[in-house]
Amino acid sequence: MIDLRPVFFICGILLVTMSVVMAVPAVADRMVNNPDWQAFAISSLLTLFAGGLLILTNRGRAVVLSVRQAFVLTTASWASIAAFGALPFTFAELDMSFTDALFESMSGITTTGSTVMTGLDQAPPGILLWRSLLQWMGGIGIIVVAVAILPMLRVGGMQIFRMESSDKSEKVMPRAAQIATGIAVVYIVLSVMCAGAYWAAGMSAFEAINHAMTTIATGGYSTSDLSVGLFDNATIDWVATGFMILGALPFVLYVQTVRGRISALLTDSQVQWFLVIVGSAVLVMALWLMTTRSVPMALAFRASSFNVVSIITGTGYSTSDFGQWGGFALAAFFLLMFIGGCAGSTSCGIKVFRFQVLYATAKVQIARLMQPHGVFIPYYNRQPISEEVTSSVMGFFFLFVIAFAMLALLLGLLGLDFLTCVSGAATAIANVGPGLGDVIGPAGNFKALPDGAKWVLSAGMLLGRLELFTVLILFVPAFWRG
Amino acid sequence: MIDLRPVFFICGILLVTMSVVMAVPAVADRMVNNPDWQAFAISSLLTLFAGGLLILTNRGRAVVLSVRQAFVLTTASWASIAAFGALPFTFAELDMSFTDALFESMSGITTTGSTVMTGLDQAPPGILLWRSLLQWMGGIGIIVVAVAILPMLRVGGMQIFRMESSDKSEKVMPRAAQIATGIAVVYIVLSVMCAGAYWAAGMSAFEAINHAMTTIATGGYSTSDLSVGLFDNATIDWVATGFMILGALPFVLYVQTVRGRISALLTDSQVQWFLVIVGSAVLVMALWLMTTRSVPMALAFRASSFNVVSIITGTGYSTSDFGQWGGFALAAFFLLMFIGGCAGSTSCGIKVFRFQVLYATAKVQIARLMQPHGVFIPYYNRQPISEEVTSSVMGFFFLFVIAFAMLALLLGLLGLDFLTCVSGAATAIANVGPGLGDVIGPAGNFKALPDGAKWVLSAGMLLGRLELFTVLILFVPAFWRG
Repeated sequence: MIDLRPVFFICGILLVTMSVVMAVPAVADRMVNNPDWQAFAISSLLTLFAGGLLILTNRGRAVVLSVRQAFVLTTASWASIAAFGALPFTFAELDMSFTDALFESMSGITTTGSTVMTGLDQAPPGILLWRSLLQWMGGIGIIVVAVAILPMLRVGGMQIFRMESSDKSEKVMPRAAQIATGIAVVYIVLSVMCAGAYWAAGMSAFEAINHAMTTIATGGYSTSDLSVGLFDNATIDWVATGFMILGALPFVLYVQTVRGRISALLTDSQVQWFLVIVGSAVLVMALWLMTTRSVPMALAFRASSFNVVSIITGTGYSTSDFGQWGGFALAAFFLLMFIGGCAGSTSCGIKVFRFQVLYATAKVQIARLMQPHGVFIPYYNRQPISEEVTSSVMGFFFLFVIAFAMLALLLGLLGLDFLTCVSGAATAIANVGPGLGDVIGPAGNFKALPDGAKWVLSAGMLLGRLELFTVLILFVPAFWRG
Repeated sequence: MIDLRPVFFICGILLVTMSVVMAVPAVADRMVNNPDWQAFAISSLLTLFAGGLLILTNRGRAVVLSVRQAFVLTTASWASIAAFGALPFTFAELDMSFTDALFESMSGITTTGSTVMTGLDQAPPGILLWRSLLQWMGGIGIIVVAVAILPMLRVGGMQIFRMESSDKSEKVMPRAAQIATGIAVVYIVLSVMCAGAYWAAGMSAFEAINHAMTTIATGGYSTSDLSVGLFDNATIDWVATGFMILGALPFVLYVQTVRGRISALLTDSQVQWFLVIVGSAVLVMALWLMTTRSVPMALAFRASSFNVVSIITGTGYSTSDFGQWGGFALAAFFLLMFIGGCAGSTSCGIKVFRFQVLYATAKVQIARLMQPHGVFIPYYNRQPISEEVTSSVMGFFFLFVIAFAMLALLLGLLGLDFLTCVSGAATAIANVGPGLGDVIGPAGNFKALPDGAKWVLSAGMLLGRLELFTVLILFVPAFWRG
């Protein structure tokens, strides 16, 4: 049996923290005299109570987590934050079912950005702030998990990053707490810079703050039903594009850069690959728009950059309905969803380093086919890749595809059409936001889906955000035994 | 440099063999006084000439192939047979472009079954026979390659089957030639049985012979534009279903069974998994048809069995337009395309044993996550799986997904819609036949596609049929150097 008390204790701390954050939308709504402030106040008190109870009943234990406890903690913290984060949605004057509220909250905390809400432009400030805050917390949360916990859990090849932060000679910083602090500072600074840039480009202060939080978190919630398309402003589009890319780079490298290793970002092979992939996709899509849709060059590059970056980073903002861009664009966006950004960022999907490992392994395999007795070793970022990492990454890739297929089939059983099934499954597991097609595409909304589909998608978001294995392992009976 | 003379020599033998086979449709057309007999006669002479030239200019070499020569031979033989197999289509009175002819020939020899032809019901017997013969030759050809060549080339985990036929104590037969003979006998016997069953069920002798050849080869060419749907006959549907399954099982096991190891088929774990997958898919799809489409039970099971088996085995016959069965059915068929049948059969796709290896590996990985220092070994068919096989299979899976994605994107660039792109890429690389949607779905035809798309699909068929690595390795410069 696993001693779950440290898990409950830390979940308690997280919930108490969240109850404090809930005061922000409460204050905002109180300032504009919107009655929703009570919803936030009640939610905050309930969350505080639950969190406090967990802390009080489980304190006094030395908090040194075993691997199993860390697995349970990761999933339990995300699930409990999603559940309590849904409270304001149910209590506010939105007339939202608990399914819808949980979907919205899960989509927030996993930085997915799929929404069941409409009428955002008329919504009170509290609820908009709450959505942005959920994504902002989810963003910093996943970076910390990816840097501090997943490498220890050896999930999906993440152990490759263990060396980087601890075992290598060029140690970033000696202790995990210091790393976390460094990352938090960078996260806050980038958010402030992003908000300033949005404001300078023409957003109101409120819009700028909200969008900054969901841009850095590559989340994609907006304050308008039209998303960033509302502004129809080239500068805003480029600011968003730039900061979405910044949100999709490994945050540890920012910390290294600030601490004097100026070249840290540019010499990292994952960053290089990511930028090359994004650049190529933007170029091809812009040419496609220019040649087949007669879009003028400047507009083609703006629309292509914004939407390619929005999809590949898993942000999910939209400025135009790319459902109208033709079969190639749909197929391309569908595939870009799976790629995702860099590990250790707020972005989602399979992630670039895994494709690098898979590519290096495939190259070695082809070499072995030609010289069965030769010795070939795959490399990642100028370091040899261990057999263990290779097979972890390949296992992750396989499981990702299978999980996607299962989600798509479940959505199909619930009566959705083909495009909604496959793109809904992809957008959930890759934490992107919009799907493809009329129902859940960039011009659509998830509200119309049946409740069952919302639960399936919520589960998919959690699964994708926590790198599959972390969640799935909890369903293995042997995990709870020995 | 690689000495290509043995490769040319064997290709020559194959072409001469094919020129003899071309006499069959020539005779058939001559018997009904159709002028197309000349097209086959000319094609036969040209092929005989080319084959003879290759034999004469390259004979006298000891035919012991190196690994590299075997790689070149596999791709070269398929490509040359596809090219010369296209000749009758161009010469016959069909007014077919060379692109269409090559597509039809490639689709035949790879046992895919996608067609650009319409008006099959009025077509002369020669051309129908030629399509069936192409698939029948392609079927026996791929079994021999899968049993005798791919394990030696260590492609995509096929080395797992090397032990079975040579290194293990329970040797099937000592020599490759004996295995090939045994398989050929089984192939012919099954074809004759299938033809007899079709004929007894109500087909004409000509229809029965053609369909028998394309059923055992899990190819899917028919003598009617309506495919097997023309007959609207339950017995014929069940005969087809049964023999498609037989075509998708490992032929080596039939030989073992005949030679006295009666339990060979039933105790093979690949066969067991395949039957369980098919059974589950049939059951779910039948329930789906009964509950959402109000199809009566008997009809639901008949339609479900026929279409599920037709797609998963990569045959591609159709009796009904399953495009009308709703989003779940489309998503399910889309995924079934990728699974395929057993290795060493005529069927295509990723193949069941690879999913078994991937599943066993994923299980081991999850066990390792829980006990990082434990020793866990994956098993296939009660044998431990070597690290080399595991990574070969994973590499194959990765490459399969990437190749599918690239094909879909290329089709998108050529202007096709989303559903045609993704299902076209899947149906080509998995050698299934029909895609999904209005254009290339079970009720559609590939004729309407632009020429570029037909070339992309032809390349995809070849790639999928020869297990990717076999073809792709020829594009690695190092292959041709050392």
